[in-house]
Amino acid sequence: MAKKAPKLKIIPLGGLCEVGKNMTVIEYKNDIIVIDCGMSFPEEEMLGIDVVIPDSSYLEKNQEKIRGIVLTHGHEDHIGALPYVLQKMDIPIYGTKLTLGLVEYKLKERGIKNPKLNIVKPDQTISLGCFDIEFIKTTHSIPDSVALAIHTPEGLIVHTGDFKIDYTPIKGDAINLHKFAELGKQGVLVLMADSTNVERKGYTMSERTVGTTFKNIFMSAEHRIIVATFASNIHRIQQIVDAAVMFDRKIVVSGRSMVNVAKVAMELGYLDIPEGTLIDIRDMNKYPTDKIVVITTGTQGEPMSALSRLASSDHRKMTLLPGDLVIISATPIPGNEKGVSKVINQLFKKGVDVIYEALADVHVSGHACQEELKLIHSLIKPKFFIPVHGEYRHLKRHAELAKELGMDEENVFIAKNGAVMEFTNEKGRFNSSVTAGKILVDGLGVGDVGNIVLRDRKHLSEDGLIVIVVTITKEDGKVVSGPDIISRGFVYVRESEDLMDEARSIVKAVLEECEKNKITDWATLKTRIKDALRDFLYEKIKRNPMILPIIMEV
Amino acid sequence: MAKKAPKLKIIPLGGLCEVGKNMTVIEYKNDIIVIDCGMSFPEEEMLGIDVVIPDSSYLEKNQEKIRGIVLTHGHEDHIGALPYVLQKMDIPIYGTKLTLGLVEYKLKERGIKNPKLNIVKPDQTISLGCFDIEFIKTTHSIPDSVALAIHTPEGLIVHTGDFKIDYTPIKGDAINLHKFAELGKQGVLVLMADSTNVERKGYTMSERTVGTTFKNIFMSAEHRIIVATFASNIHRIQQIVDAAVMFDRKIVVSGRSMVNVAKVAMELGYLDIPEGTLIDIRDMNKYPTDKIVVITTGTQGEPMSALSRLASSDHRKMTLLPGDLVIISATPIPGNEKGVSKVINQLFKKGVDVIYEALADVHVSGHACQEELKLIHSLIKPKFFIPVHGEYRHLKRHAELAKELGMDEENVFIAKNGAVMEFTNEKGRFNSSVTAGKILVDGLGVGDVGNIVLRDRKHLSEDGLIVIVVTITKEDGKVVSGPDIISRGFVYVRESEDLMDEARSIVKAVLEECEKNKITDWATLKTRIKDALRDFLYEKIKRNPMILPIIMEV
Repeated sequence: MAKKAPKLKIIPLGGLCEVGKNMTVIEYKNDIIVIDCGMSFPEEEMLGIDVVIPDSSYLEKNQEKIRGIVLTHGHEDHIGALPYVLQKMDIPIYGTKLTLGLVEYKLKERGIKNPKLNIVKPDQTISLGCFDIEFIKTTHSIPDSVALAIHTPEGLIVHTGDFKIDYTPIKGDAINLHKFAELGKQGVLVLMADSTNVERKGYTMSERTVGTTFKNIFMSAEHRIIVATFASNIHRIQQIVDAAVMFDRKIVVSGRSMVNVAKVAMELGYLDIPEGTLIDIRDMNKYPTDKIVVITTGTQGEPMSALSRLASSDHRKMTLLPGDLVIISATPIPGNEKGVSKVINQLFKKGVDVIYEALADVHVSGHACQEELKLIHSLIKPKFFIPVHGEYRHLKRHAELAKELGMDEENVFIAKNGAVMEFTNEKGRFNSSVTAGKILVDGLGVGDVGNIVLRDRKHLSEDGLIVIVVTITKEDGKVVSGPDIISRGFVYVRESEDLMDEARSIVKAVLEECEKNKITDWATLKTRIKDALRDFLYEKIKRNPMILPIIMEV
Repeated sequence: MAKKAPKLKIIPLGGLCEVGKNMTVIEYKNDIIVIDCGMSFPEEEMLGIDVVIPDSSYLEKNQEKIRGIVLTHGHEDHIGALPYVLQKMDIPIYGTKLTLGLVEYKLKERGIKNPKLNIVKPDQTISLGCFDIEFIKTTHSIPDSVALAIHTPEGLIVHTGDFKIDYTPIKGDAINLHKFAELGKQGVLVLMADSTNVERKGYTMSERTVGTTFKNIFMSAEHRIIVATFASNIHRIQQIVDAAVMFDRKIVVSGRSMVNVAKVAMELGYLDIPEGTLIDIRDMNKYPTDKIVVITTGTQGEPMSALSRLASSDHRKMTLLPGDLVIISATPIPGNEKGVSKVINQLFKKGVDVIYEALADVHVSGHACQEELKLIHSLIKPKFFIPVHGEYRHLKRHAELAKELGMDEENVFIAKNGAVMEFTNEKGRFNSSVTAGKILVDGLGVGDVGNIVLRDRKHLSEDGLIVIVVTITKEDGKVVSGPDIISRGFVYVRESEDLMDEARSIVKAVLEECEKNKITDWATLKTRIKDALRDFLYEKIKRNPMILPIIMEV
């Protein structure tokens, strides 16, 4: 009797071998659920790109099978691609209250009407097709994060979402370790777990430790305190609020995303600000400087953020003064180090005091370090393990950690986006792959900027551009106007007139040569001009601008 | 009686409020000496720029006063601008043997003929004009680094150069603390000290600790070992060599700068490789894989470096194999984190083992941490202090450290490049400033790329370019050819034909409107085209390409 093909498939469409745009398909026969739907920020070489989203063509092809998108938490790398996916497909969304509060706001902003949002509480189980999905309380740098226990006909899949093990969270319960223990006892087929901090030894400290630092700093601050943090880190904001209240300071919230998230969080009961504490930024000057705390955004040195504007004296509603204290309550995300350093330098130059992670414990991570991961692995005791949420180096290290805990190498799957992993209750294997990739969003254009456009942008960014225009007659290809040369981003033309004159002579010579030899074919003409000019410029100045010859015919 | 103006001036021309391009003028009446002459790497916004050098116009203006350039050590940020400065002025250079060995190689490469290079030994004193300059042995991440004690008619200036306090260096003497103590006892007017690591508590570990790690790693490595490090870190290279010899491995040196520096260092006696140990890269395969160590460059993820080429299977002479071990013996310089991470991921994907700083102690810094700085300040006991070699945040923190050690606030000078500080044996003050700044080098062009060119490159890099060409008649401004539209880096044209057609219609409409209204002035025409097209594109796709209208006349 022929063995049946395995029916349970796990297909990551984003989030593997990268940090960001998390999206995973769980498929069994005619049922698909999607875990998370995130965006990522552009890589350095993606010039001019605003955001990157996962290629969702596999979802489009299998649209009729999709029972829902299940969200683990409300960070952009888990919900940010929803507006784009929902524009194409009307799929019901499941998530916890705060997660959906943030999603709702985002979808409204992007003009997505009547999304099907379904609030699920931790400990609750929902049924989507053949899947029963249990939401499990975890702790992370945003409240209301959950892990998912997905009961499938072949066995149980546990997806941790992003998590850390915080025994003393600021609000609400600690991570539900009992549930993880129970699931482990029942038997877990596949574990998918957060790999972000797998290179770090030990434990991530509790969010509460930051509150202690805040109180110590607030105690001795003599003027205004400005704390920058991630808008979504509502427990961090709560701790800033608590410290402010303790020292009888009024609170100003500044920065668009901070105002929005704080509003949603307060409405939904995730952020408590005592009445009378919150004041409008315009009323700030009515209070003594030692009675003010400003909570704002811009920890990553983003040029348009409130903190960067404050640092460069470009904030419309507030001016920093010597003696003010700025606390940057975050770590630079890799790639943002120089931008953050620039802001710190600008702030110091203003005579402002600045406290950042190198100087005090004003930040903790939201992700589990090695000892926390070992705890989760040991409780869950999965048959198969797929490290997720990380670059290849993290996935690999996480796979090693699983092996150190006794897992068989062949039961650990280091996958890439689009890989199809198939499971029975006994076996797991890679089997082919589906379309997965990066879709670049630039302005309103989704996917219209690809490698060719990016290559041109890179070329233009490095050495600029030279346009040569010449008008010739239709009949005999005689030059009647030009060649005119225009350059941008190449040299400072006013100081390089000789060079540009020489360049024009080169083009003229090429045209004359071509006329003499009766070459009138445009393609040949253009190539000759391009080659001659490129060689000349490289020889002369070792630069390689983009050269655009344009021939007009009259 | 009128008080005489102070005659001793210290003028930093680079290296303050930045990391890189260190250059400082010490001036007394008709004598100038210049300490160091470094380059820096371009900031992110300096698109297409190769290197940045200090504006040396102050030196050019005072050329006849300059008695020499005195070098503290051979790192690029201290010697890299020499070819550019020596092209303009023929100034004698003073430095230690290895420093000048590296300088000589660099100048030869750049075609500077017969430079006046003068080797000075540590403990030796040279006289340049009214200055007596003592070279003092220090320890740093390159051998033969020195501090300078500059005896001036007003008092003693001590410049630490870049340093750490290494009691157990790999080769040669430890830092000459006795000399610092002695100078402190004599009385030091001004201290200028390295601020790089002032934010770090404690001590920088000895270079020797890295050797221990190497030996432990080499002991258990089963195949080839590839160690990437900075070419100039010759003591690091020596330790790799020592570990290789200990485990009976042959050594291959790969990467252009590594080969060159190793050659200079061996010739001058700074690097000892036992005979028969060094083999050619082409002979590598004649030995078992567990008998090979490759020393190479590319710790910063530089795309053209040997390590990056190995990681992307683009190295002409070597291919990495599963089981090979790569050690990245360096820390990413801020801004290079993502590039380095990319290389690590590529290496892991090849099945290569990778050890980097997050995983083992394979690197130590070359700069002094807080406790080392406190020791130097305490030995020197200067009257005035100028923190150097750092961003503003570092200078400020270093100034605070000096104050914590008991210095008067008014005796500490946080300066910027170009600031003129004047000293008598009793007083110090800021007095005006001179030209200082960044000169951008792009290919062979030095200083011909400025803000306008960079702004255009940035604009082009973000949204690309649209060129509109139209040919009109001289007599009546009638359109006889075009408008033609060419775009680059804007959209993928083949998939955006409708958009481009619409854009052409917009331009046509503008031209017709202008013709109707008898507008033939080119500037007006161009502005109208630009405005109409910009508004249309932004409305349609929220992008803002550079728009270049070109009008040809026949």
